Amino acid sequence: MRSFRCSFLLLLSACEVLFGAQMRREEEEEERQRLTSEESSWGSLWPLPRLVKLSGDSFALTSAFTIEHGPGSYAGASCSILQNAFRRYFEYILRYPKGQDSSRTTYDGEQTSQLQVIIISYDPECDNYPSVDSDESYELKVAAPVSVLKANKVWGVLRGLETFSQLVYEGDCGTLFINKTEIIDFPRFSYRGILLDTSRHYIPLKTIFMNLEAMAFNKFNVLHWHIVDDQSFPYQSITFPNLSFKGSYQPYTHIYTPTDVRMVIDYARTRGIRVIPEFDSPGHTDSWGKGQENLLTPCYSGGHQNGAYGPINPVLNTTYDFMINFFKEIGNVFPDGYIHLGGDEVDFSCWKSNPDVKKFMLEHHFGDDFRKLESYYIQNILDIVSSFNKGYIVWQEVFDNGVKIKQDTIVEVWKEANLNEEIYNVTAAGFTTIVAAPWYLDLISYAQDWQKYYKAELLNFNGTEEQKKLVIGGEACLWGEFVDATNLTPRLWPRASAVAERLWSSKEVTSISDAYIRLDKHRCRMLRRGIPAEPLYVGYCEQESGY
Amino acid sequence: MRSFRCSFLLLLSACEVLFGAQMRREEEEEERQRLTSEESSWGSLWPLPRLVKLSGDSFALTSAFTIEHGPGSYAGASCSILQNAFRRYFEYILRYPKGQDSSRTTYDGEQTSQLQVIIISYDPECDNYPSVDSDESYELKVAAPVSVLKANKVWGVLRGLETFSQLVYEGDCGTLFINKTEIIDFPRFSYRGILLDTSRHYIPLKTIFMNLEAMAFNKFNVLHWHIVDDQSFPYQSITFPNLSFKGSYQPYTHIYTPTDVRMVIDYARTRGIRVIPEFDSPGHTDSWGKGQENLLTPCYSGGHQNGAYGPINPVLNTTYDFMINFFKEIGNVFPDGYIHLGGDEVDFSCWKSNPDVKKFMLEHHFGDDFRKLESYYIQNILDIVSSFNKGYIVWQEVFDNGVKIKQDTIVEVWKEANLNEEIYNVTAAGFTTIVAAPWYLDLISYAQDWQKYYKAELLNFNGTEEQKKLVIGGEACLWGEFVDATNLTPRLWPRASAVAERLWSSKEVTSISDAYIRLDKHRCRMLRRGIPAEPLYVGYCEQESGY
Repeated sequence: MRSFRCSFLLLLSACEVLFGAQMRREEEEEERQRLTSEESSWGSLWPLPRLVKLSGDSFALTSAFTIEHGPGSYAGASCSILQNAFRRYFEYILRYPKGQDSSRTTYDGEQTSQLQVIIISYDPECDNYPSVDSDESYELKVAAPVSVLKANKVWGVLRGLETFSQLVYEGDCGTLFINKTEIIDFPRFSYRGILLDTSRHYIPLKTIFMNLEAMAFNKFNVLHWHIVDDQSFPYQSITFPNLSFKGSYQPYTHIYTPTDVRMVIDYARTRGIRVIPEFDSPGHTDSWGKGQENLLTPCYSGGHQNGAYGPINPVLNTTYDFMINFFKEIGNVFPDGYIHLGGDEVDFSCWKSNPDVKKFMLEHHFGDDFRKLESYYIQNILDIVSSFNKGYIVWQEVFDNGVKIKQDTIVEVWKEANLNEEIYNVTAAGFTTIVAAPWYLDLISYAQDWQKYYKAELLNFNGTEEQKKLVIGGEACLWGEFVDATNLTPRLWPRASAVAERLWSSKEVTSISDAYIRLDKHRCRMLRRGIPAEPLYVGYCEQESGY
Repeated sequence: MRSFRCSFLLLLSACEVLFGAQMRREEEEEERQRLTSEESSWGSLWPLPRLVKLSGDSFALTSAFTIEHGPGSYAGASCSILQNAFRRYFEYILRYPKGQDSSRTTYDGEQTSQLQVIIISYDPECDNYPSVDSDESYELKVAAPVSVLKANKVWGVLRGLETFSQLVYEGDCGTLFINKTEIIDFPRFSYRGILLDTSRHYIPLKTIFMNLEAMAFNKFNVLHWHIVDDQSFPYQSITFPNLSFKGSYQPYTHIYTPTDVRMVIDYARTRGIRVIPEFDSPGHTDSWGKGQENLLTPCYSGGHQNGAYGPINPVLNTTYDFMINFFKEIGNVFPDGYIHLGGDEVDFSCWKSNPDVKKFMLEHHFGDDFRKLESYYIQNILDIVSSFNKGYIVWQEVFDNGVKIKQDTIVEVWKEANLNEEIYNVTAAGFTTIVAAPWYLDLISYAQDWQKYYKAELLNFNGTEEQKKLVIGGEACLWGEFVDATNLTPRLWPRASAVAERLWSSKEVTSISDAYIRLDKHRCRMLRRGIPAEPLYVGYCEQESGY
């Protein structure tokens, strides 16, 4: 049996609104209206596109509907990333709700029977990996009998297909509808990431794939893969197999083989998502020491080694020999232009205890300033990684401690204290910045914390326009101390969706009440598509899911 | 490929310890030892039995192993609750880890090839429902070639089978072992509940079943089914079908039919779990009003009805006519001896606004004290429920407000403020008490909050021995504002397991470090058995699971 309620009735008959300053002025009245009707003028769009013209005219979408390469497109059947996306979104659109796609072949009213996808630039980038410069813009016109999605690159098509799929709703008797719509869309920030931590707990591939899919539903474009840390080293290195053999939780089941890594990168690429691995050092490296002798600093007490180990040993040449070979491999395995090199939270106590380190400090005239030793180490690592033609991202301490970093380095700000001041300083020094501080999603609390994430704003610091351009985005971090495959997905979604809209949509899109209505529907859509996204508050979805 | 590590090697060769006062004195040394070896002297037992004698002698458990009715048992093949349990635990024991049960037929050492289950009382209660007086005690002797589990009733057998299954561990090469053991066990508290809320969100049957199974793994024995509330009325009443037809989130999919309810009760019974439904009134009843006219109090402003409704209308005879018929049905549908009648958080503002209510107050000489009106209403409801030979449980407000309640009423204390004082007062008045206050598991926080739940102690109030006997247990409440099928199970487990041990095991079992080690293994066991219980902290399970 099924509901005769119509959950996605977009009551938009008189609604043709452009986003911009005037939106603000009408907001109060609109919100009152929305809260009464429990409908948003923007349906279930999430994140909200930059420029939307929605009409009340609706077209049916029958089972004859297809997604095709349109006339004049520079991409065709050989563009497998698009073929793959067409098939994926065809499924999501037509299988709404799951398993109820019968009797939709006939409909008397107007129909849109085709979505034509047209790449208008000479190079669609069909076989590229997404990058920091990828063009994700697109234009969408929903009309009868044919709708058109135009983009410069495949990346814009991926985003536009998601938007198109979000416009489809179910009418009475199960017929699918889509309203006449014009959308011009592009992201506000080019870096929109999710950090997953696979060291504190091993996360099975299946879970990583599921979350990459959810990222695509939210137009995220970077998986920051915090792949190793103190607790375990699941990355199976080709050059140094002992790292995972001895450093993982379980050397056969709790690792990522080269094939696994390849699959994650491919799965992400087909959704326009970059994979940036993080190999954090010199701290957070306990697990590295298990499979690589003499890599960590031996700690001393009372003049003798005490059996404990500290950060990477920065005084041995063998350390840098290892790092050259290791990062050469990483540079080959991960196609992205950037590697995250960490550099956070280095504890100096072990270095301080070690006589070889003290001798080295003396020889290098570092005095008692262990930050100089840290800088020395990091400088070496950055030079190594640069030599493999990779850019790098570092945590803010590297900047704060005055390490000499290349001008194209990306600094990631994660400390909440003095956040705006830090963003000011990093950008004043001319560095590109990404911000994680407001979005540590592992720090759970009771009630609707998505609102807190939604209200965060990256460009409220007191800098010049030039400085603000250096803030290229941010990321939601789900650190893994208390997270594994059992709870990762519902803990991440839809809380990370709040971050997604903040990073994609206009700065002016700030209404919590409107966001609530759209996000509630968006989370039900994620559920329908197999993502166990948790509820925002009381209520229900037509199709419940999960376990 | 599989691990060659042996995850459950119980290093117990010199360990024969009885629980009791001497345990305390040895605790410090033991804890040091445990933290080093990351093993508990008590293996992975959870909740810890009352009296355990573990030996280092181990017996193999081959695929020839069976669970049988032993000689002289008063139960046999016709006792379906036991047959069902034998099959269930046979699966859990032999399928450890899942799908690796081959090559275990031969083993040269000593074996325990049979677990004989012997019911020693004349009435095993095979066809009963569990009740507040059910005898859950059992004695277990693990020996070669035959182990014996003795109990007075089937309920003790269910608990003992769980304990037996927790003693089994995997040796090298996949052989299963169990150590020579003697256990005498019985619960500290007879009421050990979990509250699930199916009104704020609809919880599918599958999820309820999964959590009943997890409850059995933790020796919980009451499902407090908070089935309806303001937000929705999913209980499909036979007498008043409009209640769910109009009051549920979705009248065909988001309801519990009579068959559904029956299945939940049966599923629970076979695991020794009572199902106590809560029909909370007069507050928390918004959803009731949708399908039953004139049941709620119309609110007034400016001398006119304002369209809003308040609590159940206590001044109409039709209210009580309805309640008689409604609770007559509930009494028949739910076999347990108790119904939870709620009675919490009644907002008087609507009653105050209503002229009919005011008139009624005058006629009954209630003055301005609306608590008297509330008491009047609740008194009527309690009398109705009593007339159907049911006992009742009420939230503490009913006691606090001085409602005249029968001496066998159970008062549930849920307010954290002045908790010990409240327990003192309720028991001093001679009422049986259950305590939920320390265990509101919906109030999530970062990090290991299970420790807070574990440290709670119900009998620290300053009462007489007689008063303390009136505290029959407590329950973990997972209110549903932010919980549905996507996140319920990992949010509940293993956090509720901490409550389980507190309610079952000796008061002296308080070591957090020992509990951590056992609970960590217990959560991995729940994972293996299909319950996506979230991690306590960093680490891993041999078999990860979930999504």
